[in-house]
Amino acid sequence: MVMNSGAGRTTRRQLLSAIGMTGGTAALYHAMTALGHAAETQFTGPPALSGARKGASVVVLGAGLAGLLAAYELNKAGYKVQILEFQNRAGGRNWTLRGGDTYTELGGATQKVAFAPGNYLNPGPWRIPHHHRTLLHYCRQFGVALEPFIQFNHAAYVHSTDAFGGKPMRYREVAADFEGRVAELLGKAIDQKALDAELTLEDRERLLEALRGWGMLDKDMRYVSSLQTSGHRGYARPPGGGVNGAPLPSELLDFHEVLDPQVWTSMSFFMNHTMQTTMFQPVGGMDMIGKAFARQVEGLITYNAKVSRIAQDERGVTVSYQDTASGAMKEAKADWCVCTIPLSILAQIEAEVSDELAAAIRAVPYTGQVKVGLEFARRFWEEDEAIYGGISFTNQEIGLVSYPNNAFFSNGPAVLLGAFARDMGGYRLAGMTPQERIEAALAQGEAIHPQYRKEFLSGASVAWSRVPWTLGCCARWNEETRKTHYQTLVAMDRRVVLAGEHASYVGCWMEGALLSSLDAIGRLHKRALEA
Amino acid sequence: MVMNSGAGRTTRRQLLSAIGMTGGTAALYHAMTALGHAAETQFTGPPALSGARKGASVVVLGAGLAGLLAAYELNKAGYKVQILEFQNRAGGRNWTLRGGDTYTELGGATQKVAFAPGNYLNPGPWRIPHHHRTLLHYCRQFGVALEPFIQFNHAAYVHSTDAFGGKPMRYREVAADFEGRVAELLGKAIDQKALDAELTLEDRERLLEALRGWGMLDKDMRYVSSLQTSGHRGYARPPGGGVNGAPLPSELLDFHEVLDPQVWTSMSFFMNHTMQTTMFQPVGGMDMIGKAFARQVEGLITYNAKVSRIAQDERGVTVSYQDTASGAMKEAKADWCVCTIPLSILAQIEAEVSDELAAAIRAVPYTGQVKVGLEFARRFWEEDEAIYGGISFTNQEIGLVSYPNNAFFSNGPAVLLGAFARDMGGYRLAGMTPQERIEAALAQGEAIHPQYRKEFLSGASVAWSRVPWTLGCCARWNEETRKTHYQTLVAMDRRVVLAGEHASYVGCWMEGALLSSLDAIGRLHKRALEA
Repeated sequence: MVMNSGAGRTTRRQLLSAIGMTGGTAALYHAMTALGHAAETQFTGPPALSGARKGASVVVLGAGLAGLLAAYELNKAGYKVQILEFQNRAGGRNWTLRGGDTYTELGGATQKVAFAPGNYLNPGPWRIPHHHRTLLHYCRQFGVALEPFIQFNHAAYVHSTDAFGGKPMRYREVAADFEGRVAELLGKAIDQKALDAELTLEDRERLLEALRGWGMLDKDMRYVSSLQTSGHRGYARPPGGGVNGAPLPSELLDFHEVLDPQVWTSMSFFMNHTMQTTMFQPVGGMDMIGKAFARQVEGLITYNAKVSRIAQDERGVTVSYQDTASGAMKEAKADWCVCTIPLSILAQIEAEVSDELAAAIRAVPYTGQVKVGLEFARRFWEEDEAIYGGISFTNQEIGLVSYPNNAFFSNGPAVLLGAFARDMGGYRLAGMTPQERIEAALAQGEAIHPQYRKEFLSGASVAWSRVPWTLGCCARWNEETRKTHYQTLVAMDRRVVLAGEHASYVGCWMEGALLSSLDAIGRLHKRALEA
Repeated sequence: MVMNSGAGRTTRRQLLSAIGMTGGTAALYHAMTALGHAAETQFTGPPALSGARKGASVVVLGAGLAGLLAAYELNKAGYKVQILEFQNRAGGRNWTLRGGDTYTELGGATQKVAFAPGNYLNPGPWRIPHHHRTLLHYCRQFGVALEPFIQFNHAAYVHSTDAFGGKPMRYREVAADFEGRVAELLGKAIDQKALDAELTLEDRERLLEALRGWGMLDKDMRYVSSLQTSGHRGYARPPGGGVNGAPLPSELLDFHEVLDPQVWTSMSFFMNHTMQTTMFQPVGGMDMIGKAFARQVEGLITYNAKVSRIAQDERGVTVSYQDTASGAMKEAKADWCVCTIPLSILAQIEAEVSDELAAAIRAVPYTGQVKVGLEFARRFWEEDEAIYGGISFTNQEIGLVSYPNNAFFSNGPAVLLGAFARDMGGYRLAGMTPQERIEAALAQGEAIHPQYRKEFLSGASVAWSRVPWTLGCCARWNEETRKTHYQTLVAMDRRVVLAGEHASYVGCWMEGALLSSLDAIGRLHKRALEA
């Protein structure tokens, strides 16, 4: 087993100790950061680009976050910047649907969103990890108000059609029973000397103490129905006041059912570093970010510009595009090009790039998630079930139900995320009409929330494989394509450099788009100064 | 082991299934609630008290939440209500200290709080569990705006002077390593057939699959340094964008150190039902609740009333009190009395109650927590360390550092909770001067945050054992006192009934005070109608 060796730790500790003695706490802190203690991101502050050659110009393709950030920083560095955007709005997948919005998907189905004012669906990104420092930095700089996104909620459900008779169980009860039984079983194994070869006597004793405390085991190292275990899993009758205040313990679940994959996949999901608390969302909808970014480059964006060709020679880049509003064909010329067009679209555009880059562009398939927003007449999940934000996972095609994180405790209609379908579920939901998707979300969701039918008002859905301007949600790399194509994809191809979540290892996240953009423009700027 | 027997489950499942088939989902939901599935609290809605006898009156002692709620509901039911309150404000332990406030503790030390506008310390209650339905109900009814309290934060620290060379570790890394190694060890035990007698072959296979997924084990069921395990514990270099986007795995911690009690006590703490997500706090400070409750009974409260005697006979209750503003002795008379005075104070007041109740009042000691609020020039925990809310636990006397949950990402000074000392730590901090407490909080806290000294502005502390009007934080029941005294304490003593967190099984929580109050006034009203 690869473990942090005692010797290695001692050396680092000795180093820190020596720094602490000679340089004080500030020096110690910087040393700790350098040694990886406080490092959380590859973001080290906004780029210090400056001194662009007089008259140097860049054309940016796509006004999603990667394109907007590239334009903002390059413009600040002194470049003449033009952005070409296919849609009539900026932000790209940073997108929010609200009441009154109309959306037409590939295939022609049009939805008119009927949500009440203030309610929304974020079809694309919907949550921001606390360690996505680039995004958080620019949100702060550009004045985007953020509020907590309650990702992890012990009171939300774990639902499996294969376990507990199809009844949704509170996360707290299945997780407590999983941990408690694991602790009990490991305690028994230690007791039977099965791990004497693995652990020293002292560590076996420390571990037994840990298992008892973590797993809520009794004095005999058993995980049993008791007020103690109810202290984790919840009570049959919770503690109260006055004459009948004494609590009653809850019964344990059958361990066979607790071993249903929905239980441990949920537990593992919430320990996923990307999904860990604290998370955030913009107040008012995710597109507040795209709008704030776009305000920084107001006047540089040409909307309704459908790029058909990217040409380059030793003197510059020429981008041919159609003004979809007038139908006219136009050209944009610049010294350099930052192309943030999703690979799924870019693969269909004539581009003068190396064969290797062309192959890389074609090599990466896109995912096909489907989201369904459902508006209900009241927040029954809050009022009836004490669920405030968070996610209930299910093994049905909808994947999950995620509760709104804004306007807690309010009256009136609210929108929850009634499906976030991926893989086969995404494929199947994308094959349905918008109305059928809503029906599927209701039919599957009511297995978790029986109030669904009574409280339902309206719904809206986005199947990413049918979004005309991306033909998919985000790039799906695998080990093989990373090895063969990634470095080619991100390398400058003469005067063109690609950027976007697809040109990062933080795929499907806004942070990936931004980090990719900063890396790309840093290299572009260096090349431009060398040229 | 007491387990939910298969037979029992089947019966319940069959029952639910039958209901589902005949009555539809609404009936199913109600049945599920009745069977305990959705039950989260003893609160079943506000009491429906009405029809008080004409002219019937109640004197309520104490304008904390229990007293305020009793007065509000009894007044609504038709009683003539008067509240006597020792302090010159309502709310009791529901209390917030802000810049400009002055507080004098027992012993005479006076603190003038110097926090910037908007910053505060909640000396008493500071967070609200999502299942404290009574409190949440009245907050909503009385218009108290609530915001999330980020209790659980994977990025906060676990700190022990006995482990990791005294270096604070991110919760995510110690928890991931604890879970991963537990999973690996249990996998080995199963492999060695140590648990064949405990589990069926099928369940052993299900468990192995669960351990692999939950514990991030590799194909050989080992927990090793890898991108997979870094996906839970964090990376040495996190995923990024562009050329250097590929992440690097982090090293694992020494398991001996991971077994430090601070690790598993933190993990267990966050699974405590009372501490589980989602939690809330009032926008602007905890006393927004006390103020909102007090607004409902405006005009019924007599402030500065120091109760010295509670007398009762067959005709009514007479409470003698001193108007501490004028020094004058006064009397309040009523048919009934709801006494919410903390037992620590009540034990010193002459009261005509049974010997048994008098003994119960004297039997319950009070805890002596100490809180220290520290104001810093900037949110270095957010800016430098990506910690947004949540708690870092330490084995030092300060107990923890808790980060503010309001105004995330803002500039300017912010207040964190620099100590929440209990038991021996509380005793020791209470013995210090306010200035010494701040120095202790700084000295211990800088082991976690080296930025402390550089950024510190001012501090304030409350040692509950020195709070003149409670002489302690809350009632500390044990198994023996519950058995001997609890039912006596909550029972009506002729015309007097006690209420407050001390008269509940939800001790030290506002919910306990409210549930106790509702139970007490329900019984009082019944008795009053029978009398």
